[in-house]
Amino acid sequence: MARILTGIQASGRPHLGNILGAIEPAVALSQKKENESFLFIADLHSMTTIKNTEVLVENTKAVASAWLACGFDTDSNFFYRQSRLAGLHTELLWYLSCLTPYPMLANAHSFKDKSDKLSDVNAGLFTYPVLQAADILLYQANLVPVGKDQKQHLEMSKDIGAAFNRTYGDCFVLPEPMINESLMVIPGVDGNKMSKSYNNYIDVFLGEKELLKQVKKIVTDATPLEEPKNPDTCLVFKLYALVATESQIADLRKKYLDGGYGYGHAKKDLFDVLWNKYEKQREVFNFYMNNNDALEEKLLIGEKKARVVAEETIANARKLLGFS
Amino acid sequence: MARILTGIQASGRPHLGNILGAIEPAVALSQKKENESFLFIADLHSMTTIKNTEVLVENTKAVASAWLACGFDTDSNFFYRQSRLAGLHTELLWYLSCLTPYPMLANAHSFKDKSDKLSDVNAGLFTYPVLQAADILLYQANLVPVGKDQKQHLEMSKDIGAAFNRTYGDCFVLPEPMINESLMVIPGVDGNKMSKSYNNYIDVFLGEKELLKQVKKIVTDATPLEEPKNPDTCLVFKLYALVATESQIADLRKKYLDGGYGYGHAKKDLFDVLWNKYEKQREVFNFYMNNNDALEEKLLIGEKKARVVAEETIANARKLLGFS
Repeated sequence: MARILTGIQASGRPHLGNILGAIEPAVALSQKKENESFLFIADLHSMTTIKNTEVLVENTKAVASAWLACGFDTDSNFFYRQSRLAGLHTELLWYLSCLTPYPMLANAHSFKDKSDKLSDVNAGLFTYPVLQAADILLYQANLVPVGKDQKQHLEMSKDIGAAFNRTYGDCFVLPEPMINESLMVIPGVDGNKMSKSYNNYIDVFLGEKELLKQVKKIVTDATPLEEPKNPDTCLVFKLYALVATESQIADLRKKYLDGGYGYGHAKKDLFDVLWNKYEKQREVFNFYMNNNDALEEKLLIGEKKARVVAEETIANARKLLGFS
Repeated sequence: MARILTGIQASGRPHLGNILGAIEPAVALSQKKENESFLFIADLHSMTTIKNTEVLVENTKAVASAWLACGFDTDSNFFYRQSRLAGLHTELLWYLSCLTPYPMLANAHSFKDKSDKLSDVNAGLFTYPVLQAADILLYQANLVPVGKDQKQHLEMSKDIGAAFNRTYGDCFVLPEPMINESLMVIPGVDGNKMSKSYNNYIDVFLGEKELLKQVKKIVTDATPLEEPKNPDTCLVFKLYALVATESQIADLRKKYLDGGYGYGHAKKDLFDVLWNKYEKQREVFNFYMNNNDALEEKLLIGEKKARVVAEETIANARKLLGFS
């Protein structure tokens, strides 16, 4: 059985891009019987950039609610907030820090990218690859799904874990990266990658009016209503193709090619698919956003289970270090 | 009441220099009724340089035994190993790391001194001033006795604590340095500062023969036995003056000035004073070195009391951070 571990930044309400690109694939992966998925909200990492308590708490709630809404099963998997196991994560962080060469961190891409504005970099941002190593090694994960840009950090986790095993004795499974080469890029309403920071996202958890308003912002060309249209260059069609069924897509393609069908119609059809497809998710999301106790209850299931695994690893590390 | 906090590196059996220069003054300070002393063995810090578990465990035992031998009272004070409260210290370390500017660490003297051999520096060595801040702030200490070389680190602790209070709300007492300007330098048997690394130390916990052997190594000049000698330039006399009573010192001074009294005699007299003065300490030290359960019991007293204080601080920090 493979133990797959994923950390998610507490960066706020997930949008359609996050759902299609990250949440749905991870949920599918977690549903395979041969896998055991550890999924945590990396709110300790988010602290390196978010200094406002209310924002961090609200972001964490939104991320947790979205994963639950998209069907991540808290009983068969491990779903928890990193902050609630902070002592265990950071204890391992320190043990690993003492085995991490300074130049390894100073040469990491993530740090080099920031080296022209060092005064904005805090010590947490500098050492976060070591916390990442602790996040992974603490749960003896075999596989970590990463984008290509995160490959270097995963190599560091592996190196640091190997250094501990070599210095003090066998303690950690060494993780392997699980790189999805065919990573989908979901376009936003302006055609650029959908992203919170570009403000070009579609939030499928919104109410009818607000969602329709976002869909209407999708950029199209000026082809008149009556003329045939090219589905393959149209952003509305692209987004529709990502969420509709095969037959719906074929129908829409025909309408585009036949003409007499405007972008306003297409946007209304895209809205309908989004509104219906995510009906249940929207309900569940809003339920958890408005029922904090229910959300806490769900998160506590994973926290308890994760704590058992983490405490076992830490107990072994302490024994090897002579701290017990 | 002032809460005074001191961390001691787990660097091995304390020698006469450590006892006279650090342990005895700290014990005296802890005996004042207006003070409450927190004294911890900083074994998490020692991990940055000591990678051998047996050495670290043995060093920690020796340091603890020596402080107990010199009369540090575990009931009226707080005496504990940092490693046993690692989760609490390191959780705070992370919270503070996110508020510590990278350049503050990169510009610290302690790091700059090492910048010509960066490959030997690990991430723990780089960030240890932040762990030091956590060590202090966790216990709401008012005063931290420091040497002049550590003044910069204490300023950092204060700045980092102030940054947390400012960003998230009031959580920490801001510590003040307690600088002893008249710090005694205890000479070793070669006249340099007594130090483990110079191998010029006197270990008063040793048995009779070994102690005598160390005392005999003290360097003297070649003045013949029968001639008068200058007490004020003699290393044996200097050490004698540090441990003998006023009247013993006056007697020895007379013997030096009268002549007919050799350095061999002086060394024997110094040995006698050391042997008698530290008789009880030697017994207690060796008792704890050979009775691990008794030592553990003593250390658990402080650990339990310290945990209560640390948990209260962490609970408050978590509340301010939205983690509870």
